[in-house]
Amino acid sequence: MAANLTDWKAVGASKSAALLSLIPGKSRIPLPLPSPAALPDVTDHIRQYLSAKEVELTETDSIDIVRKTSSGDWTCTEVTEAFCHRAALAHQMINCLHEIAFESALQRASELDAYFAEHKQPLGPLHGLPVSLKDSIHVEGTDTSLGYVGWLGKPRSVKDSQIVTDLRSLGAIIYVKTSVPQGSLSAETRNNIIGYTPNPLNRQLTVGGSSGGEGGLLALRGSSVGLGTDLGGSTRVPAGWNGCYGLRPSTGRLPYEGIASTIDGIMLPFVVGPMATQVSGLELMMRSLLQTEPWRRDPMVIELPWKEDVFMKMNERVSGKDKMAFGIMVSDGYVNPQPPVERAMRMVADVVKALGHKVIEWKPPSHSAGNDPYFKICFADGGRAYHSALATSGEPSTEAVLGPEPTPEANASQIIEANIAVRDYRKTYLDYWNSTSEITGTGRPVDAFIMPLAPFPPPQPGQARYLGYTTIVNTLDYSACAIPVTRVRKDIDQYLAGYASLNEVDQAIHDDYNPELSHGAPVAVQIVGGRLQEEKVLAFAAGISQQLQK
Amino acid sequence: MAANLTDWKAVGASKSAALLSLIPGKSRIPLPLPSPAALPDVTDHIRQYLSAKEVELTETDSIDIVRKTSSGDWTCTEVTEAFCHRAALAHQMINCLHEIAFESALQRASELDAYFAEHKQPLGPLHGLPVSLKDSIHVEGTDTSLGYVGWLGKPRSVKDSQIVTDLRSLGAIIYVKTSVPQGSLSAETRNNIIGYTPNPLNRQLTVGGSSGGEGGLLALRGSSVGLGTDLGGSTRVPAGWNGCYGLRPSTGRLPYEGIASTIDGIMLPFVVGPMATQVSGLELMMRSLLQTEPWRRDPMVIELPWKEDVFMKMNERVSGKDKMAFGIMVSDGYVNPQPPVERAMRMVADVVKALGHKVIEWKPPSHSAGNDPYFKICFADGGRAYHSALATSGEPSTEAVLGPEPTPEANASQIIEANIAVRDYRKTYLDYWNSTSEITGTGRPVDAFIMPLAPFPPPQPGQARYLGYTTIVNTLDYSACAIPVTRVRKDIDQYLAGYASLNEVDQAIHDDYNPELSHGAPVAVQIVGGRLQEEKVLAFAAGISQQLQK
Repeated sequence: MAANLTDWKAVGASKSAALLSLIPGKSRIPLPLPSPAALPDVTDHIRQYLSAKEVELTETDSIDIVRKTSSGDWTCTEVTEAFCHRAALAHQMINCLHEIAFESALQRASELDAYFAEHKQPLGPLHGLPVSLKDSIHVEGTDTSLGYVGWLGKPRSVKDSQIVTDLRSLGAIIYVKTSVPQGSLSAETRNNIIGYTPNPLNRQLTVGGSSGGEGGLLALRGSSVGLGTDLGGSTRVPAGWNGCYGLRPSTGRLPYEGIASTIDGIMLPFVVGPMATQVSGLELMMRSLLQTEPWRRDPMVIELPWKEDVFMKMNERVSGKDKMAFGIMVSDGYVNPQPPVERAMRMVADVVKALGHKVIEWKPPSHSAGNDPYFKICFADGGRAYHSALATSGEPSTEAVLGPEPTPEANASQIIEANIAVRDYRKTYLDYWNSTSEITGTGRPVDAFIMPLAPFPPPQPGQARYLGYTTIVNTLDYSACAIPVTRVRKDIDQYLAGYASLNEVDQAIHDDYNPELSHGAPVAVQIVGGRLQEEKVLAFAAGISQQLQK
Repeated sequence: MAANLTDWKAVGASKSAALLSLIPGKSRIPLPLPSPAALPDVTDHIRQYLSAKEVELTETDSIDIVRKTSSGDWTCTEVTEAFCHRAALAHQMINCLHEIAFESALQRASELDAYFAEHKQPLGPLHGLPVSLKDSIHVEGTDTSLGYVGWLGKPRSVKDSQIVTDLRSLGAIIYVKTSVPQGSLSAETRNNIIGYTPNPLNRQLTVGGSSGGEGGLLALRGSSVGLGTDLGGSTRVPAGWNGCYGLRPSTGRLPYEGIASTIDGIMLPFVVGPMATQVSGLELMMRSLLQTEPWRRDPMVIELPWKEDVFMKMNERVSGKDKMAFGIMVSDGYVNPQPPVERAMRMVADVVKALGHKVIEWKPPSHSAGNDPYFKICFADGGRAYHSALATSGEPSTEAVLGPEPTPEANASQIIEANIAVRDYRKTYLDYWNSTSEITGTGRPVDAFIMPLAPFPPPQPGQARYLGYTTIVNTLDYSACAIPVTRVRKDIDQYLAGYASLNEVDQAIHDDYNPELSHGAPVAVQIVGGRLQEEKVLAFAAGISQQLQK
């Protein structure tokens, strides 16, 4: 241990080098790249290193990939080789991987091809689909550092997390684990192992977090679908900030059993959720994973099979067959969105209307009243778990979230008070939601509501100052899907003169905005359903996204 | 406040007198009764004060009562009058009521009769059914003391708890709230307001708790069905110890919104559950309450409608149509059951076999390993909430559970550790359960398991020393149903000579056993299903109880 305390730099660098050494020679590219300012967006740049066939394979949606592998049109091997190659390229561009398991992935692909040859049918609904995983998910034979130097080389991944076992049983191929911030506690991705993960659509900006590597890898099409985890926005934020889609299911829908977290054992637990290049990838993952009946193996999962009937009905409804009503909340009243986010919200509201639905101004109980106890619960231990993980290697903190030292722990009475505040807030919120039935004209309360993913598009390093738009969904335990809407346009996304700020945080976020620098960055919103309404939320996300692309 | 500190006795006595004053003259009986030793069982004794018609009405099962009121055979008024009368008699015999609302009940009965006369159909599936409620459930216009003198006269019940609103919408009639121990924290029912509630089947023994008044009232047929709450056995124990049936649903099945608790805001919450004179009463309550879609109003309720198909299938299965396998655990290895409980377990095992099912010895992970973190979580605040409730009136503690003074509170790290221990225990337990598929011969893991409700039948005051058989179910969040099996028989329920005790608690419970005194006391077991398996558990409880009665 004493040695570790001085060696954290060496241990981190050694892991980083070991990772690069797993990239085959044919996947190496000339480094360094041009500077981020000179070449902000590398999502086109990556294609020069790929064959046309590789581009085709990797830019196909998950659902079409399994269609091809399941009909024998494509072999699992060629698909896996293409994604391994592209993921390796992506990592060299944005440091988005923590673990590389190309060899075992190709071995598995070959077994699946043999299975298909013998049985003339796929092993399961994810036959031969490469699925990337956030680092916190255990995969036998790889590290789970969670961004802590001190957790490297520890036998934490003696066995797969439950959801990995389930994925394998469905025919999925595990080939990479993706980068996370130190402790997985931030909306940016930086640690003392792989360094910083920038946004591949604009490398001057953050990739997001905490499933940051996952978001960046998807943007570069080094993956078509993966799994992140979400305690305060960690699937949604990095998905949306990379022009992709991310689902935050409610607690108890997917198995979190055996996944690593810094924050654990609290009333507001992490959930695992899919992230993908298309909504159909999220849907494929939910439907397939629930088909394995995960409640039989993870006691925290509720026996709720995928509701195909609800999904189909909501699909029809959103397309305009039946009139629905959506709540629209442009600002939470604590931090106003920057101009491109405000424009994205207007675009979505217009699309909802164009589909024939009613738009209602969403005026729920103050989100701050829900976020206050949320933060008390999440940080009840005063950062002890985080700081003791740092202490195992002596590495310095790379996070602003938790401060340089532990703060006093909460006591039982304080935790109880915060837990009750959350429950009461959920009731107040639900009462508000129900009250909207008087104004929707559908006879029902609003079917879902839509709000920004964050007040900003992916910001510059250090500027992800406010996460209240996503944390409130965790407070409420609602299901929510992040969808990309537009890109920042420096020509039209401008504040009007004389901005009247709501408070210091709001002012700082106003001042941060740099349209010149942010030009081209993805702008996303989230569609929020009630608790355990994943089918509904995905159907709405699909319908609205489709209309947005028209 | 200063006045309260000296007046707690007067306040308690005044409430007790006010309660008696609400009993109409025609329901008064000569008091005092003969001593408990001279007249232990008052369940027959009560009949002398009732007309034959009243006996018929009150000794009908809930499900048949609503059949009669819904067809017009019986008026809601005559049913309600009979139950009000019998509940008033019961209270004079065992102090089982905290609140009397006969007047509003009769008013409501009359409205329901008018409704039926006009519409020729019932208002809902509980049309005219009197439903008794544990004191902790708020009813507008009544006190919710929770057994605390200091909570009397406070405007706590400004509105009905959610489940009361739901019951009323189904046609149920609210007429009494039943006694609880001080703070609702004990398996005996004693407080400084109504005093002690003895067991009506043997008044030398405890009625149980914390839904103690509810259990005693059911035994005396002053109610056919009611609601209790359960944090560690509080619906099951007083149901079973009074020869009745009690369900502990899993968290999130029924609405707990707006119910009072001393222990709150923890990972192992109280649940509300039905208690009834027959299993069919439990089933009626679950089916009816879920029909109101409580998840639309209580954000903690999961969207899980009553599964009639599962209930019917399990009903058929248990009757012997398909072979099933049941786990049987006679002792949890920490405290052995006293002889009558052991005999009850053998009886149930024989019945399961007689139905054509397989019996498997249930050898799960140590229940102590699950109960240890359970108690840490429940008492994390060191009894602060309890003692501060006592301090509002200055009344002394009547409970041994929490000690005379608050103890140090747990800190966040300790609570987190205990929460994680519970989750890990649930996983270990589920793994064990799944492992039984290798020995059941059905291709499935065991369908449910059966164990004692407690190591003792209702004990003498002060001897409810160990609740680990029920708390483990709360730790696991399983659904469980208490069913009565037999009565203590002093002639055959005897320890063999030379008992080898497991530990001091086990020895004390061995030494407590007094067959002479306990003769005739009800002996119960519990049927335990997985999480959220209420339909299955009720079907099994019905089938096994029916066979027991053959």
